[in-house]
Amino acid sequence: MSLLNDLRDLVRPDAIITEPRELEGFTEDWRGRYHGPAACVVRPGSTEEVAAVVAACACHGVPILPQGGKTSLCGGAIPAEDGPAPVIINLDRMRRIRSVDPVTNAMVVEAGAILATVQQAARDAGRYYPVSLGAEGSCQIGGTIATNAGGTSVLRYGNTRDNVLGLEAVLPDGTIWSSLKGLRKDNTGYDLKHLLIGSEGTLGVITAACLKLHPLPSRSSVAWLAVAGVNAALELLGRFQEGGAGRLSGFELMNRLQHDLVMTKVPDRRSPLEGQHDWHLLIELSDAGGPDDLNAVMEDLLAPAFEDGLVLDAVIAASDAQRATLWEIRHSVSEANKKGGMGLTTDCAVPISAIAAFIAEASDAVHAIVPELPIIIVAHLGDGNVHFIPFFPFEGWTGPDAGEGRGAQVRQAVNDIAIRLGGTFSAEHGVGRVSLAEMARYKPASELRLMWAVKNALDPAGLMNPGRLLPPPA
Amino acid sequence: MSLLNDLRDLVRPDAIITEPRELEGFTEDWRGRYHGPAACVVRPGSTEEVAAVVAACACHGVPILPQGGKTSLCGGAIPAEDGPAPVIINLDRMRRIRSVDPVTNAMVVEAGAILATVQQAARDAGRYYPVSLGAEGSCQIGGTIATNAGGTSVLRYGNTRDNVLGLEAVLPDGTIWSSLKGLRKDNTGYDLKHLLIGSEGTLGVITAACLKLHPLPSRSSVAWLAVAGVNAALELLGRFQEGGAGRLSGFELMNRLQHDLVMTKVPDRRSPLEGQHDWHLLIELSDAGGPDDLNAVMEDLLAPAFEDGLVLDAVIAASDAQRATLWEIRHSVSEANKKGGMGLTTDCAVPISAIAAFIAEASDAVHAIVPELPIIIVAHLGDGNVHFIPFFPFEGWTGPDAGEGRGAQVRQAVNDIAIRLGGTFSAEHGVGRVSLAEMARYKPASELRLMWAVKNALDPAGLMNPGRLLPPPA
Repeated sequence: MSLLNDLRDLVRPDAIITEPRELEGFTEDWRGRYHGPAACVVRPGSTEEVAAVVAACACHGVPILPQGGKTSLCGGAIPAEDGPAPVIINLDRMRRIRSVDPVTNAMVVEAGAILATVQQAARDAGRYYPVSLGAEGSCQIGGTIATNAGGTSVLRYGNTRDNVLGLEAVLPDGTIWSSLKGLRKDNTGYDLKHLLIGSEGTLGVITAACLKLHPLPSRSSVAWLAVAGVNAALELLGRFQEGGAGRLSGFELMNRLQHDLVMTKVPDRRSPLEGQHDWHLLIELSDAGGPDDLNAVMEDLLAPAFEDGLVLDAVIAASDAQRATLWEIRHSVSEANKKGGMGLTTDCAVPISAIAAFIAEASDAVHAIVPELPIIIVAHLGDGNVHFIPFFPFEGWTGPDAGEGRGAQVRQAVNDIAIRLGGTFSAEHGVGRVSLAEMARYKPASELRLMWAVKNALDPAGLMNPGRLLPPPA
Repeated sequence: MSLLNDLRDLVRPDAIITEPRELEGFTEDWRGRYHGPAACVVRPGSTEEVAAVVAACACHGVPILPQGGKTSLCGGAIPAEDGPAPVIINLDRMRRIRSVDPVTNAMVVEAGAILATVQQAARDAGRYYPVSLGAEGSCQIGGTIATNAGGTSVLRYGNTRDNVLGLEAVLPDGTIWSSLKGLRKDNTGYDLKHLLIGSEGTLGVITAACLKLHPLPSRSSVAWLAVAGVNAALELLGRFQEGGAGRLSGFELMNRLQHDLVMTKVPDRRSPLEGQHDWHLLIELSDAGGPDDLNAVMEDLLAPAFEDGLVLDAVIAASDAQRATLWEIRHSVSEANKKGGMGLTTDCAVPISAIAAFIAEASDAVHAIVPELPIIIVAHLGDGNVHFIPFFPFEGWTGPDAGEGRGAQVRQAVNDIAIRLGGTFSAEHGVGRVSLAEMARYKPASELRLMWAVKNALDPAGLMNPGRLLPPPA
């Protein structure tokens, strides 16, 4: 293959992987649900090498699949089973922290840096990079940007999109576009950065980013609550947004099934509360300064909520270790669910005012299709983002069309309700391959035409991660 | 003119303006610097009417100029002197507040609503729309979105871009694109909203927006300070960002000339401090809840700063009226400068760590060209956004090429330094017509090519606000 010969001239020999056994680590996602063949994997060591590899692929007309930590839940960074096998560009060798500027509150990192490493580098400079999610120990910062990752801190700090000041990327023709300025304000033409963020590798390869840093929270209060129901949790959300002012930094709901799966499937997890409860809520307040004792603020907000019957039981962490333990429960849900069964993970967001209706109506709709099917609910409640997960047992599961297509039917019923309530079918996970049908079903034709116009303008040959994000034009 | 006949079928008779005297109000900007002829002005009453008008113009090949309150400082919403005269679509009749949802913290407003009206509608619902700027009494929300307006609250709440959840717009072919969902998270394809925000009318006509609301600050503390210099102000910024936690909501610097112009040119403004001072600083802390007495927090942060010689004098407002009075000084700078002379307004932002160097080096560069030329400095310091304004007297001013081109020379010298320090030539004002040369000079060719690719994909006939934002392709 002459492309392979060309690539061997561009990167060092051990940066090209062609051995089938070695390729396996790059052609399957973390959950083991998606597989597909690759022409080869290239692991460039610099932006210039990425540019050269992309240019070579473009020259040979071979598709390019930019890849990070493969922790996406949508299969967007795994090759398709059919079609021409792509060259996978994995960024894991580009993981330098190029600079940290605590005065400007900005840091420049390469795309392959692990999210947890980025968080730590910020902390080492007395600053905070807020994006936090279950896969932070293995996902790459470039992947979080390409998918506009959400997570548990969106309520206070926004999505990944809101924490990126600048980007460096290789465009589909091999050009390097660099705009790594650490500016809060820059109104000079179209915001190309926001176009690339969330584009899932279909418009270019992100090679580095300038990230926004925040003051490092120096105190926090974390509580684990049993609450009376979804409406009680929403009432609490309003009270904490008002009374907790800007200090509310976490508000995570889970139902009993989710709680129990974590306790039974993940080693060393213990329930914070005695007894059985239908609804669990994690609340975090945090602050970088000020005279407040945040546990006192937490208690002041919780006391009347007990009296009003919103809260049934609660524990407030007494130490950093206890706070970490409570968060570990929340961050263990993906692992627990992977081990416990086949969850039809949905990722809807609806307006906050429609959350209770969404959960009630979606539950009814699912049970009309599969009576008594267990449902996991784990929600970033403050963002309106509800992971509503109909949960099939492993036994008898043969894919989303299992049981006479009921899997696909169930997923569509849930998404239909979210859309009807003014919501979305993908709040934070993205589209990848798993939600292409939803894109075609729910997006107005005018919007898909616009997206294709942008795609064709930037990637006229259609080589960047083809078959992902956008459904085929109508 | 057959287009005019077509338009008369689409909107009510008094919504089309062709009388030269009536047109004048739409063909000159607020400062009276830019003028240009229009084919006519159309004032549609609905999104459907905007769509029909755009489709008619597209059919006749006549350019379209979307227009808001005309308070831009860059001439982007005023017709060019040459080229085909555009149809101006002014949105001032579309000014409804369509909905306010205080639970979801979102409101839907039409593009022609005045910013101050939007702010008040949010307050009436117990919520806060944070974007605030001098022209808020006359600028339209659609214009603030089309230009991604900044202002005095960016430090805490971000730019306009960060406060828009969804958009409705008419695309260049007359299609209506509507995505007014009040969602915090929506990862379903390219973020077209961010492409339209800041596109200055070159990609479509924004007709409505879903805005993000925040808790209404229930307490605040505002101080006016004389500080020892720019470095003292930057040291204070760091201390307030740490110690004020998330409560810092305003940090505005001005030099003596700016202060004195406000006092002498704007009626009813009084200096908050005795004596003469070289550098003035307004600091605001605000909060939506919590037990704090914010004046006490302010005093605690200022006391050591006095001892350290950073602060020379200070007054803390004792009432809402006094707080408003201090802010009025800041919001009067545009009026003062318009009356006082010909300011070569620049709008640079640099990384915070480079602000002091920028002001020092730009001052030297200006004085190397025009010795002793007065310079206004008024800065959103926390954003790194410095309005560095070489200030020519009215006498003898004949345009930017006055005095053997020294005006243009001066502006370029300032921008060159900002760019060299990792900054931008337009932080919040945008490009319009005034910064086209800077776009050509400072933007990498690869970036301009990308922008033109997007422009041509969405507006292949080039009819949307031609000659603005993008310099002609090289």
